[in-house]
Amino acid sequence: MKIAVVAPSCTLPHEAAERVQAIAAARGDCELVIHPQCFLSDGHFAGPDEQRRAALLEVMADATVDAIWFARGGYGSNRIAEAALGDLPPAARSKLYMGYSDSGFLLAGLHRSGLEVAHGPMPRDVLREGGERAVTRALDWLVRRDPAALEPGLQGPAFAFNLTVLSSLLGTPLEPDFSGAELLIEDVSEHHYRIDRLMFHVTASANVRGVAQIRLGRVVEIPANDPEFGSDEQAIVADWCARAGIRFGGRADIGHDAENRVVPFGMKIS
Amino acid sequence: MKIAVVAPSCTLPHEAAERVQAIAAARGDCELVIHPQCFLSDGHFAGPDEQRRAALLEVMADATVDAIWFARGGYGSNRIAEAALGDLPPAARSKLYMGYSDSGFLLAGLHRSGLEVAHGPMPRDVLREGGERAVTRALDWLVRRDPAALEPGLQGPAFAFNLTVLSSLLGTPLEPDFSGAELLIEDVSEHHYRIDRLMFHVTASANVRGVAQIRLGRVVEIPANDPEFGSDEQAIVADWCARAGIRFGGRADIGHDAENRVVPFGMKIS
Repeated sequence: MKIAVVAPSCTLPHEAAERVQAIAAARGDCELVIHPQCFLSDGHFAGPDEQRRAALLEVMADATVDAIWFARGGYGSNRIAEAALGDLPPAARSKLYMGYSDSGFLLAGLHRSGLEVAHGPMPRDVLREGGERAVTRALDWLVRRDPAALEPGLQGPAFAFNLTVLSSLLGTPLEPDFSGAELLIEDVSEHHYRIDRLMFHVTASANVRGVAQIRLGRVVEIPANDPEFGSDEQAIVADWCARAGIRFGGRADIGHDAENRVVPFGMKIS
Repeated sequence: MKIAVVAPSCTLPHEAAERVQAIAAARGDCELVIHPQCFLSDGHFAGPDEQRRAALLEVMADATVDAIWFARGGYGSNRIAEAALGDLPPAARSKLYMGYSDSGFLLAGLHRSGLEVAHGPMPRDVLREGGERAVTRALDWLVRRDPAALEPGLQGPAFAFNLTVLSSLLGTPLEPDFSGAELLIEDVSEHHYRIDRLMFHVTASANVRGVAQIRLGRVVEIPANDPEFGSDEQAIVADWCARAGIRFGGRADIGHDAENRVVPFGMKIS
């Protein structure tokens, strides 16, 4: 089982790479190939668009690679996400792709192209408290589709997105068809008023209104609202679901933390 | 000339109300009626949704009111913007509506309903440095459509929006038809990476791709990007315009400051 790591968004710290390599080596069930592009730096990004796109296309076209694991989030995968659409190399179709947060742009596009993708922890997560658990969970899914890695409430086709990323991809060529699926959302570092505005935008979408239900993962590192917003993230999400006639299904076990569970996109869960 | 002030978003400070009343009184060409709803407070908002909506509908239905001036931005007008759509009181159709920033949600909806709206300074702006100039410019437009108040580069139908608000209203019932118009954008308190993401989203819209050109107003109070983003707001906007085949027309004289000029929506400029 060969897993290639590329960084379509921001630079991967060397410490994270080393610790994840050590975890993979100790397991003995997978070979982790961390592309040197992960360590490039060009302003906000892990190298210029051209180099990030080239690294992604290189591992997508490599028939010896079984899975592509996005190194971390941040921002920037949308700038090269057209690489996930259109004429894909044939070898791209026999792989699993995993990431979350900013990687959601790519996951959405790859899913649209008919590839197997999953929301799940990334190599950078190893630096979080309890991060080894996150990386182990991700590898358990990548290597052997371990059901224990899955978000526990999944009952049918599902998607999981950072709410800001979801709002930003609506109306773009990356937007998946959400019909009848469950939509799980989470976010980080957004004020309550921004979460409210994002939910206004997202729940106005006819596509989103076609979901079976929305569930809310964790919303963390919320900056202080001045004045106090007046309701919390769960009340905000439940309110906009009610306004839009979308079922709100309660909480989900995903988010920017070590407990973040795996959500395969659009997959039938038996 | 009777101008009603309501606050569909956040609370208007009493000091701002008093200073704007003094400016209007000194002019002697308009009567400013500041609705008591402007001073309500309910969490983030100038009163609960119901009270903000009721105040707006009350002044819209008042045949003695010639113009409605939104007190300030912040966040929240989208929560009551459906009041700008659908069955409007007949008296609503003979008024001018002005505001900017978060008020853009309402301006968009009111424009869609065929009403006369303009991007322009608001009462809260009086508290800015040079704020009296901003309020005087707004009143010059509200009272006598003074061409000196206009953004100087306008050559045809135009729209002006806060970029974040524009991104948030795409795909909602508030979205105007931008075909052939000039689109002016500005923003405040957004990181460079967020401006980049907003431009990705906005320029993916087929509606936005139908504009004559995009011009960029001021983008102020940009929080530090860590690491440095790698390009500035003008380069970001020009880059996404180029990617989307939209003409970038350079800078515009609008923004969150006292120099913010008036942009009537969709109007033919002679």
